[in-house]
Formats: sequence, C-alpha cells, structure tokens
Amino acid sequence: MLPGPEEHARLIETARGDRPAELFVRGGAIANVYSGELHEGSVAVTGGRIAYVGEGVGALGPETRVVDASGMIVSPGYIEAHFHPWVLYNPVSLVEGVLPLGTTTIVSDNLFFFMQMGPERFAAMADDLKDLPLLYLWMARLTSQAKFPGEEEMFALEKVEPLLLRDDVIGTAEITRWPALAAGDEHLISGIRMAKALGKIVDGHTGGASESRLQPVAAAGIDADHEAITRKEVLNRLRLGIWTMLRYSSLRPDLPELLHAVTEDGVSTQHLTMTTDGPAPEFLAKHGLVDGMLRVAVENGVPPMQALQMVTINPATLFRIDGQVGGIGIGRQADLLLLPDLTTFRPETVITRGRIVAENGELRVPLPRLDWEKYGSRPRFDAGLELADPALYPLRVSETEAEMPMIHLRSAVISERRDVQVRVEDGMAAPDEQGGLLHAALVDRGGTWVSRALISGFASNLDGFASTYNTTTQLLVLGRRPQSMALAAQRVRKLDGGIVIVKGTEILYELALPITGMMSDLPFAEVVERNKRLSKAVAEAGYEHHDILYTLLFLTCDFLPALRLTPMGLLDAKTFEVLLPAEGSPGR
Amino acid sequence: MLPGPEEHARLIETARGDRPAELFVRGGAIANVYSGELHEGSVAVTGGRIAYVGEGVGALGPETRVVDASGMIVSPGYIEAHFHPWVLYNPVSLVEGVLPLGTTTIVSDNLFFFMQMGPERFAAMADDLKDLPLLYLWMARLTSQAKFPGEEEMFALEKVEPLLLRDDVIGTAEITRWPALAAGDEHLISGIRMAKALGKIVDGHTGGASESRLQPVAAAGIDADHEAITRKEVLNRLRLGIWTMLRYSSLRPDLPELLHAVTEDGVSTQHLTMTTDGPAPEFLAKHGLVDGMLRVAVENGVPPMQALQMVTINPATLFRIDGQVGGIGIGRQADLLLLPDLTTFRPETVITRGRIVAENGELRVPLPRLDWEKYGSRPRFDAGLELADPALYPLRVSETEAEMPMIHLRSAVISERRDVQVRVEDGMAAPDEQGGLLHAALVDRGGTWVSRALISGFASNLDGFASTYNTTTQLLVLGRRPQSMALAAQRVRKLDGGIVIVKGTEILYELALPITGMMSDLPFAEVVERNKRLSKAVAEAGYEHHDILYTLLFLTCDFLPALRLTPMGLLDAKTFEVLLPAEGSPGR
Repeated sequence: MLPGPEEHARLIETARGDRPAELFVRGGAIANVYSGELHEGSVAVTGGRIAYVGEGVGALGPETRVVDASGMIVSPGYIEAHFHPWVLYNPVSLVEGVLPLGTTTIVSDNLFFFMQMGPERFAAMADDLKDLPLLYLWMARLTSQAKFPGEEEMFALEKVEPLLLRDDVIGTAEITRWPALAAGDEHLISGIRMAKALGKIVDGHTGGASESRLQPVAAAGIDADHEAITRKEVLNRLRLGIWTMLRYSSLRPDLPELLHAVTEDGVSTQHLTMTTDGPAPEFLAKHGLVDGMLRVAVENGVPPMQALQMVTINPATLFRIDGQVGGIGIGRQADLLLLPDLTTFRPETVITRGRIVAENGELRVPLPRLDWEKYGSRPRFDAGLELADPALYPLRVSETEAEMPMIHLRSAVISERRDVQVRVEDGMAAPDEQGGLLHAALVDRGGTWVSRALISGFASNLDGFASTYNTTTQLLVLGRRPQSMALAAQRVRKLDGGIVIVKGTEILYELALPITGMMSDLPFAEVVERNKRLSKAVAEAGYEHHDILYTLLFLTCDFLPALRLTPMGLLDAKTFEVLLPAEGSPGR
Repeated sequence: MLPGPEEHARLIETARGDRPAELFVRGGAIANVYSGELHEGSVAVTGGRIAYVGEGVGALGPETRVVDASGMIVSPGYIEAHFHPWVLYNPVSLVEGVLPLGTTTIVSDNLFFFMQMGPERFAAMADDLKDLPLLYLWMARLTSQAKFPGEEEMFALEKVEPLLLRDDVIGTAEITRWPALAAGDEHLISGIRMAKALGKIVDGHTGGASESRLQPVAAAGIDADHEAITRKEVLNRLRLGIWTMLRYSSLRPDLPELLHAVTEDGVSTQHLTMTTDGPAPEFLAKHGLVDGMLRVAVENGVPPMQALQMVTINPATLFRIDGQVGGIGIGRQADLLLLPDLTTFRPETVITRGRIVAENGELRVPLPRLDWEKYGSRPRFDAGLELADPALYPLRVSETEAEMPMIHLRSAVISERRDVQVRVEDGMAAPDEQGGLLHAALVDRGGTWVSRALISGFASNLDGFASTYNTTTQLLVLGRRPQSMALAAQRVRKLDGGIVIVKGTEILYELALPITGMMSDLPFAEVVERNKRLSKAVAEAGYEHHDILYTLLFLTCDFLPALRLTPMGLLDAKTFEVLLPAEGSPGR
C-alpha cells in the first residue's frame, strides 16, 4: 500500500514545495482526526496522495486544479469497517449508492465470492475492483455460515493463505461459529494463528455470547466484534480489549442504545467504531451508510469529532491501514469530503485518490463495468436437477412420526422450536393452509441432497417462494402449495439465481441474482426499488417482520437460535443436533 | 509474539474456566485503558498471559497463586516508547532502576550496540535480553548520528534487513538527519520503504524543523516524532498525522509545556504518547521514568486515565504491539501493576508475564548476568595508537590562519560559531588559560584520523578530560592543558572506554564504560552515584549547563546546531560544511 518509489519521490517534492500539486483544496476547516481539532488549512495532493496540509500555498502551480473549500469542512472519507457487499447490490452497484454519501472505504466480507468463485477468481475480481473510485479492502472467511458437505476442503488453510498474503486482504472475516472458537476448534485456531503471524486482524462475531463465554472467544484471538446489542454488551467486549463496532443495520438498528456506553457510561471512544453490517438496499437508501450513523451518533449526543474518529481513524487503526486511509495526513490517500456541517455529514463534494468523484449526491465518474461471468460468479444448477415435481418439497413423514419439530420464526431472524402434529398425505406433510404452516425445502443446486422442514411465523399466505439469497446460496423453497413452490423454484433456476414469489400459478415478483445467487447486476437505484417491491409482496403474503432479506439470509445458517434449515438438515443451532437429516446428503 | 499452539490452547481453557489459572489477581479496580474506565474485576493469568478479566472466579484452582488487590488499582505496566538504554546504565542495570517503578516495556534504540557489535552479535544480545523480566523491543538504526568513514557499509540495508525481520525489532530508530529525509535521500528512503513493507514503524527526529520543513519529512514516511519543544510544535506534528511523543528528558524536561496542547488546546490524546528519551541516571533516580511522567501529566491537569493511556495502549497501538502489551486485555502479556492511587503512580507490586518481580520499590527477582564480552561490546583501541604525546590534541594553526572558527556552547547541547584570534605556538593553538578556551580533539580509536577544534562555554577550568561517551564512541579529549589531556586519554584507553577527568597530573574522576564505550557494568544505584560525582566534578571545573552527559553525547553529532566536532572534522551541522577537516581521515 506504499506508493511506488517514483511516486514516493514526487510526494516528497510536492511536500517540500518543489513540485506543483495536481489538486489543491484551498481553505476550509480541516476536520483533523489525529489532533481532534477543526483548523484552517489547505490540502495539496500529488499522485492521489496527500502531500501537504497547512496554510501555505507552496504546492500551487499553473496546472494545479484548485478546489475552493472556503466555508466548508474538509473531512477524511468515511470507512465502513464491517460490511457484506452482497445484499442484492453488488460491489460495483453499491458504489453508486454510497460513494456520493461520503463512504470511501469499505472493509468487506469475501464469503459468497470465495464460495462461488474459489480463491483465484475471487482474487481476480478483487484486482479488477481496484479500478473503482471507492477502496474495497477484504476480510477472508475461514469457514462458512452453514456447515455443508465439502466445506472443510473449500476453506482449507492452503486456500485461504494466498488471500491473506494480499495487501488488500486485511484480516479474517467474522467467525460466526464462536462456540467452536471457545472450544478451541483446530481449523479456526490455526487460521487465526496464520492470520496473526501475517500481521492481519481477526474479526469476530459473538452474537449472544455471555460475558463469561466471551472470554475464551477473546482468548482464541479475535480482535474486533460488532455483535453487542446493549450498552452492557459494549462494555463486556471493550473491557476485554476487543475493538467494538457499534451496529446500525437494517436487521438491528441498535446504534442509539449502544451509544449510551459513550454518552452515559462515558467510555473512551478510542476502541470504538461503527458499522452498518450490510443493510438491506431500501434501508440504505433511506438512512444512508456511514453518513447515517454519524447523524445518529451526533443526534444522540456524541461530540461530532469523536463520532468522526469512530468512522475514520479508529477503524483505520484497528486494521493497521492508518498509513493509507482514515485521516488527512501526509502520505495518505487523498479521500476527502467537503461537508457543509458536522450534523448532516452529507458531502457536497467527494474526492477519492485526488479526483472529484461525486458532487451534491451524484456520482461524477463512470464506473468500470465488470464481466462477472469471468469470475465464475453465476450459480450453477445441475442439469439433472428436477424441480418441477411438487413432491420434491414437502417433508417426508411416516405415520408414526406425526409430531414433528418445526421452525417458528419469532422475529426476523430468531426462531424457536415448536413441535406440531402434522397431517400426513402419501407419506408427506400436508400442512393446513389456514394454519400458517409452510413447507420449507433447501435444495442442493448440485442435485445431491435436499433438506426439508416445516416453518411457521414466516408468511402465512405465501403459495410459492424460491430464493438463492441465503447463507448457502442453495435453492431455498417455501410455500403452502407445492405446485406454486415448484413453479417458483423453476423460475429461479431459469434466472440463474434470484428471488421469485408465486401466487397460485402466477409470478408475482421476481428478481434475478446472477452474481453468486445473492447479487443483482441492476443499478443501485433499481435494486432499491426491487427491494421495496419484495418487502411489499411478502407483507401482502403475511410476513410480519421487518427485514425479509435477513430472514431469508439466516434461515439456512448454523449460528442463530434455534432451528435452522441447513445442508445437514433441520438443525438445532444451539446443540448442533440434526433433528431431521437431509435426504441424500453425503454428510450424513 | 503469538503464544505457541499449546500455550494458546491452555489460554483458551483457562479463559473458559476449565483449567486453573497460575496467578489470580483478586479484586481491585482495573484501570481499563480500552474502555477508559476503572471497574471492579479480577485477572487470571496462565502461561504469563491474561486469560480472564471479570468478576468470576472460575479460573481459581487449589494451586493458583492468589494476589489480593482489594483496595488497589490494577494497571497495565507502563511502556517507555522511545529510549536509549545506554546512558551510563546498560540494558540490564536499567531494569534494576526502572522495573520497580512500573515500566515493564522499553522500546529501545539499537545504535551503539549495532555499531560496536554488528547485526549478528546485536541479535544475540537481544535474544539473551529476553530472559529479563522487562520487555525490550528494538528500533533499528538506518544511519548513525555522525557521518564517518565506513558508515555506509556499516548501515547497508542488507545488514539492517535481518534485524527488521525479527519480531522484537518493531521499527527503524529515529533518523536524526531529517534534512536528508526532506531531500529524499536514497538510502534512507529505501530503508523506510523496506521497514514499511515489513509492517514496521518509522521513528523520526525532527528537532528544529519548521512546520513547512516537517511536511517533506512526513512525506518521506516517518510515523512518530518526539522532538516537539512547544505546544505549537506538538500541533504541527499531530496535524500531519504524525504520532507525537511528549518528552520529559534530563536534557529537555519539556513535558509541562507540551501538555498545554492537551489541557489548553484540547487535542485528542489518541495519537499522543510520552517519553523520557533516555535520561541521565541521576535525573531518572530523582524523577522516575514513565511513573514520573504520569505524575507530571496529572499534576498539570491531564485526566489520570488519559495520562495512563498515553503510556500504555497508545504506544502499543503505534507500534502494533497492542495484541501483546499495553492493556489488561485477554491474550496480552500479564504485565500488571498494583497501584495505591492514580496520582503517584508508584506501584506496590509489579508483575511481569504473570510473575511478581518487584514490591515496594525493590526488585524481587535476580537478573540474568550477561557476558558482554561475548557480543564484542568492548571498544577496541588500535595497538599503534599513541595517546601520550600532548601534541596530539591542540589544533594545528599556520600563522596566516590565526582567526579560527570555534565551537561555543550556548546551552548543554546547542552551540554557536565564534571566530577567535588564536595565539600560535609551534604551529599549534595555545589557548589562554584564563580565556575559557579548551582544546578539543576527537581521536579515532583505530588510529587513522583525528579531528581538532577549539571550544568555549564548556568548562573553563578543565585541565584534561577524555571520554568515549559520545555519538561516535571514539575518544573525545578536551582540556586547557595538553599534558593533562594526554593523561586522561591514556587512562580511558586503559579502562577500555569510559570518562576520566584529570587536574594537573591527578585523576579526579573516572568511570569505566567497557560496554561499547557508553555503558558501565556497575549496578544501577552505583551508576547513579557516579553520575552525580561526574556532575559535581565538571561543575567544579566550570561547567555551567545542566546535563553533562548530553553535552558530551552530542558534541560529536551531525544534527544539532551549529558547530560540531565529528569524524569528518569541525562541521557546520546546518550547512554540512567541514570547516576544519580531520587529519588523516580517508573521508577527506
């Protein structure tokens, strides 16, 4: 992340005043996150880096582009410290949505890219994304979010290591399976040790861990966590030396509560950052990204400078990229925002690497078009996979097993186990259409296994629904009518991944997600619209929770309470007991 | 700096409560530098690392050693962020003086060790020092403090690189030749680039650099600086993104002034640390080390927690060793202090790596004895070197050159140029014994060159003085009487390095410094006594400044204004012009 030798030499020359700057941001009040001050000054840029910060004009030359910042606040670009750039949007379309709002660096999870593309093609994509006017840095997964046959091979450390050796891979991504960490799981601990030996950061996920359970997770080596949902949980993490990310996601917009740790408990903000954790597109469009969190922080009483430090120099320090981004310091990337104030935090001008890339909320540069096919990002469905048969989806029940464990959704993502008496027809569950019970099947796109269960509390009137948008990127099919389910499933396959809702035999909603089965290739604004329509469609089908995308995402994971439909079958995620094994799974 | 795999596994077990701790610090208020709180809690230790921080007792077992901390504050050990462990004391004797005061980590300059021993033997010494109950971490020099013939070869990057690859070498040491940095000096820039590519930190030295001159030095790549002497200079550095160390040294006890940046300008303390910069032993004995700076900070109005952060987590963060030291966090080295209060900051008990090493100001463990000879640390004098001839020392003057440039000391280290009319005898300067002018000669221990000059403002009544304690570790000889100078020089040679004062023909004072010519092998308390006697002896000879050791150290350097006696001859350090070339120097 160092400049090349010649660029380095030019930087020194401009700093010395012996070489004109390419860009000169004149005047304005510099929001200095190092000193914590607002002070008058200009910023000179050469080779995309900051060469001068001060009141002189030595770096001005006849060909220097001058930007007048008088009356404005000049802030470093915002850093999103923990992000999943695959919530319908993709890493390119996301830039359209967030760069005009001032987020200039995103520390991103590599999960679905890695799973679908493998290490080499993920690396090729990461290389191509460097042409974007927003800096993507990556965290490499050591494991998936739902155990499946072949997982160990896919995440073998010799496949992860080449990624960790890259400059733009700055750590390992959140390890959702924290009980395994507390138990000293060999693969995970080895992965953590490898990352740390390479000077990289280990991101944790400790949702629901009590103060005493956090201790062994910390001992395993996690450096950061974003799962506190109360101010007390913020303290629990911070006190152990864990960098704590205060979250404001569409799933859990907990930030106002968490900020009480700062405004009432008075903790140091030095080891705090904020994160949106990858919100749904419609949430993002409404609340902004890092800019939105800054507004919430200041509205809730955090001094503006501390709020700003929490999304600039603090995450940069955590990730050891403070020589590259996170502040208006000499040698850092010239990622600068011209802000009218420190209350809205909405930039009038966004500059990255010394180039004006957005003004007044509008992107000002074209984005490179990626050839996603090149990375093997299109989800594959086995040619022999037969989705048309309605009998594929309902749970198999022998007469003696008529009382069955069932997933009941208590909230958007938290489920509980309910045991229900199931009416049986032809050896299959035949849920009552009035009872709100749905069939649920997770179908391997490779055609080797299928997991089945019953679910309630989801959307009582959903006839047929199919989606690859889930932690497995396999085909999740839900509904009260197997015929409608079969239609939805076939349509998703036709789309090469996506989300489809069927009522009777009519397609009510569809969105193609050809990038790993999780991401659309539509523009950001269009993705927001499709997200809104999806929310409306599922609400009409009886969905009562607040975040359909996270409901879908986590229905198949193995780390949230209580029952989950995973590649292994219906799983009790607390005990890791498989209650109803998948059919055909080689993992059985 | 990771624990080994088995140790790591044990750490997790203790954290989980499944394996008794070796040490359990029960009760007390934890000074939590991560959260900025004082909170109740116990600390469990296994394998020398912190395995648990909280209110539980799960880690207690029948063989656990319990330390009662009730009523006490449990603080992380203090970190000295920038130190020269060779001011008469040596790295072992220093531990006697400072470990009982709570300093448990010292980030040290390798200068004289490297110059005298070379890279392999320095590394062998650093390995042996790991047995000490205080953690030494090292900064590797890229250059000396006074250009000399052979310097380039000695500091060739292929000799520095093996050091930078070591875990305990965490950066490059202060680069005093900052004008060369601003000019883009190839060797220095290459060294900085090498260090940064290896993830290491670059320590700067920007004494006297104006705000505009700081910019190219920052662009060269320095991460930290400790040379601010006013609050404005603190701001100048911080604002460019340079970590700023507030100094309280025997030479420059500027801390009260510098703290105004915090208490009056209100800057963030996140990027501030404090340093004593290697004080004279007698200053250290009087004012303490890091503990002393904490007292000064709190007396001057800095909140105690912020003061503590500035000497614990802040330097640990700067140096990227916050996973190892700097706070009472899980997985960190168990370096703990039991403090009665946060005003004196004097520990009753000092624990390092889980072992009680000092109590009530007294060391409680034996220190390893190093065989210094093994590292080649004894300064060598060439067998043919003839020091007995009084004619070796006075400046050569031809009759036509009777007006000569002279070093005049304005303060302990700052000199100015004065041009004086010199009385000449036998082609040599014969300074008036009443005029306060002394002969000054820097004699190569290898016998190939000698630099000569006149000096005033030093100590008018000094007959003869000789010392290897200077930035070159060559033999510096001063005095008004060449015969006395010759006696002093011969005695220093006999001692294999040291400091000797002669009055007439009588040795008034001597201190052997057989470790690189800079360090005594005496115990710390004895070194303090010898320092006091030296101060008294030079004061009696007319020395009017406050820090004889720094006067001696820097008389031969090439980076302080104005005239210096260096291996190249009498040098104007501002222009790098050699005013009176050395005799016999191959560098001419």
